[in-house]
Amino acid sequence: MEMNFRLEKNGENLIIAVAQDYQTNEVLMVAFMNEEALQDTLKTGKAHYYSTSRGKQWMKGESSGNTQQVHEILFDCDADAIILKIDQKGAACHLGYRSCFFRQLDLKTKDITNISDDEIKTISERLFNPEEVYGKQ
Amino acid sequence: MEMNFRLEKNGENLIIAVAQDYQTNEVLMVAFMNEEALQDTLKTGKAHYYSTSRGKQWMKGESSGNTQQVHEILFDCDADAIILKIDQKGAACHLGYRSCFFRQLDLKTKDITNISDDEIKTISERLFNPEEVYGKQ
Repeated sequence: MEMNFRLEKNGENLIIAVAQDYQTNEVLMVAFMNEEALQDTLKTGKAHYYSTSRGKQWMKGESSGNTQQVHEILFDCDADAIILKIDQKGAACHLGYRSCFFRQLDLKTKDITNISDDEIKTISERLFNPEEVYGKQ
Repeated sequence: MEMNFRLEKNGENLIIAVAQDYQTNEVLMVAFMNEEALQDTLKTGKAHYYSTSRGKQWMKGESSGNTQQVHEILFDCDADAIILKIDQKGAACHLGYRSCFFRQLDLKTKDITNISDDEIKTISERLFNPEEVYGKQ
């Protein structure tokens, strides 16, 4: 069988990749992979993704040092999404949070086209200051 | 602020939605939401998604009865992906498994364009027979 790279972006065929802490099961990030990224992930044991904004493959942590050692790979019924169970060095989020999912949306939110500040709660602490790691954007 | 429905499919603008067991953090499925699906999820407390294959919004469990009660919603740094922490009734997967991610890919897999059966391991048990729930496909 083969994976179902059915999402198209920038002329690339992609699957969805969910990175999950291999010990706590916390979801740390959601990104995309093309065939090459998945192949390189298997070859090196370190998570590689395809960046749809930069239009290229990248190894997670190549600039920040926050690499992801892969412990387990699962894939879903349609073979169009995979889970990487990983050992995350430092923070996964480029904003310095352990997980990219550091904000909670109030379940009483009325209008999702206009979410107010008091409907959002930050539920995680910053591990690093992104300016110090990536430089000023 | 608002969510970033930046994935385009069938003329719909979508975000990625990851459904996670609210107690164990097991990832049960990955799907898409359009604005309406997220709004209906908030309104009803039950997970709604957008099906890219059927081209319409649906409430998870509307045919199978395997609904998802939402306990918590998180969203990521780019606001283009959300996590639903849910109480899953029965199985999440339409093939009858608790999680759609019921298969493990061997980390020693050489060629992802041609994955052999002995590189795949089923790590979960079926909770129901899909033919009995959905009828013969």
